[in-house]
Amino acid sequence: MALTHYPVVNKKGDTITAAVTNLDLNDISRAAKTYGVRSLYVVTPLFDQQELVERIVSHWTAGVGSRYNPIRRKALELIIAKDSLSEVVDDIAKNSEGSPKTVVTCARPTARSISFGKFREMLQAGKPYLLIFGTAWGLSEKIINSADYVLEPVKGNTDYNHLSVRSAAAIILDRLAGRQE
Amino acid sequence: MALTHYPVVNKKGDTITAAVTNLDLNDISRAAKTYGVRSLYVVTPLFDQQELVERIVSHWTAGVGSRYNPIRRKALELIIAKDSLSEVVDDIAKNSEGSPKTVVTCARPTARSISFGKFREMLQAGKPYLLIFGTAWGLSEKIINSADYVLEPVKGNTDYNHLSVRSAAAIILDRLAGRQE
Repeated sequence: MALTHYPVVNKKGDTITAAVTNLDLNDISRAAKTYGVRSLYVVTPLFDQQELVERIVSHWTAGVGSRYNPIRRKALELIIAKDSLSEVVDDIAKNSEGSPKTVVTCARPTARSISFGKFREMLQAGKPYLLIFGTAWGLSEKIINSADYVLEPVKGNTDYNHLSVRSAAAIILDRLAGRQE
Repeated sequence: MALTHYPVVNKKGDTITAAVTNLDLNDISRAAKTYGVRSLYVVTPLFDQQELVERIVSHWTAGVGSRYNPIRRKALELIIAKDSLSEVVDDIAKNSEGSPKTVVTCARPTARSISFGKFREMLQAGKPYLLIFGTAWGLSEKIINSADYVLEPVKGNTDYNHLSVRSAAAIILDRLAGRQE
């Protein structure tokens, strides 16, 4: 899966590069590890932000944090920083059988959205998929339109639909890979 | 539901009072609003921490934040700060039909854990329940033992089981109240 900081939109819909946050990396890598995700690619084109990712990861995997909390280390080890989503696709292609299909998450339904059930079936076939989450106000239209698939939005039982990316990622992984009774 | 900062345990199992964090309040109130939770009680016995809760909430409900992001206001409005879980129970009893049954969340299975399916059925009967989440390393044994019910832990599809309270709360609300296909 990938958590991307570019290209995402701000409140007004302008395309921006969002800031990397320590908490996104911790929460989402722990959820990824819980649900058997192979890698968590953290995408930002900014060099200083990539350095920040490396610093956070090495704190927990090699630094003080790895001794303080070795369990968290296992989660943070899933993180790989990359410049762009196309580099992520290349990296996955290099390490698996063929290029992955891209699946974007989006808080709004689109005409071509696929259901959680459908995507769960697709995952069981064993081909590689890259599930993409956007920070800030979500992925840019351009990314959504160019993806192979769009996953349906998470709905609660109200009209309110403004989960954080951390909450949405946890719920989506649970719907796709959780042991549901 | 309640997010409590006391009594919870630290890494060593000692009972402590955890610090309130801005992000817990934002993420968990947004998830609570999405899934139709009536109130999010934030419990801490520390007066300065209760003041911090009030300050965060009023930033988003009456201050600059309410104009910058009126949607988030609707989530933060669910938050009510209280001294203790017994005050939360009293507050719910005052505003509903009878005292709520307490249901604690816990990352370990217990002999008396109830399943998500069972609790979903119980919720449909319409009686009040108070679902309790602990910060830090989780709720103290005393709170777990004295609750009416213990909810089974969230399992992914691996042995790794170290979700943040923000991720666990989102997944649990989705399992209890989400529109699953």
